[in-house]
Amino acid sequence: MEYVKSKIRDVIDFPQKGIVFKDLTTAFKDSRALRTIGSELSQIYCDKGITKVVGIESRGFIGGSILASKLDAGFVPVRKPGKLPADTISASYDKEYGKDTIEIHRDAITQDDIVVIHDDVLATGGTMAAACELVKSLNPKKIYVNFIVELEFLNGRNALPVDVEVTSLIKY
Amino acid sequence: MEYVKSKIRDVIDFPQKGIVFKDLTTAFKDSRALRTIGSELSQIYCDKGITKVVGIESRGFIGGSILASKLDAGFVPVRKPGKLPADTISASYDKEYGKDTIEIHRDAITQDDIVVIHDDVLATGGTMAAACELVKSLNPKKIYVNFIVELEFLNGRNALPVDVEVTSLIKY
Repeated sequence: MEYVKSKIRDVIDFPQKGIVFKDLTTAFKDSRALRTIGSELSQIYCDKGITKVVGIESRGFIGGSILASKLDAGFVPVRKPGKLPADTISASYDKEYGKDTIEIHRDAITQDDIVVIHDDVLATGGTMAAACELVKSLNPKKIYVNFIVELEFLNGRNALPVDVEVTSLIKY
Repeated sequence: MEYVKSKIRDVIDFPQKGIVFKDLTTAFKDSRALRTIGSELSQIYCDKGITKVVGIESRGFIGGSILASKLDAGFVPVRKPGKLPADTISASYDKEYGKDTIEIHRDAITQDDIVVIHDDVLATGGTMAAACELVKSLNPKKIYVNFIVELEFLNGRNALPVDVEVTSLIKY
């Protein structure tokens, strides 16, 4: 993963002053880095019987759909309110200023599913915690959680349910 | 593609009254349909020397990143304003009410690239026309355009540049 790490760009003061943003677009656009991400992800989950990969809008769609394709699983989007056209359930979580809400289609996950929820970066973990809540309420057999990048100094794992296995490819 | 077509859901009056929305989430969550989409897309482009797949936010990220992975190309997102962290160029296009703008990182495409721009559905073609304009301004060797679904009765191809080859997997 050193090669992938070398392709991640630090963007200073994005999205706001004082934050150093880990920009993965410079890794995604690099065919070798994208290939490495795909094969590392599928290696972790290839023997877990995954039937659905859930990706969190929007950047989680990229690694998530590649992982779904490699595992021969289905892909399910978690989206911002009003974006999913059919019957949804939603969960809210606290952000620095105010609340945010995410949604999933009610029929996206069944009780027979083994699910991995994927996002690009684990920061404070608020979005992923809400995504876990959503997926859990649909009662799949098992839930895994994965990130490409984990910002360990933000302790995001503490926000996630204790009973899900969390993996990340790159730690800062 | 009949199987994939059978997995696409019609949602009436979404996003607004009178529109029948082609909901691809029911195809993406189905492993066989997702696999078929991936292999059909890669079959079309496997001999074109594609180096970058551009996906349009957000639904175009799904098929786009799978295609990039299968072609061993890089993946580049086109996003709504303010979402891409580094130096961008932008293009605006008319919507039914007012204008919309999309952005791409200025360093996402080089003159050596052969690009396919992908989105899930071709409707009126406004977004894809703007995406073509963005990518063209970065001077790649060649640009292809692809959709999973084409709503032929909306004549979206007429909005696209005449010098790009357009393909779609499913036509209505």
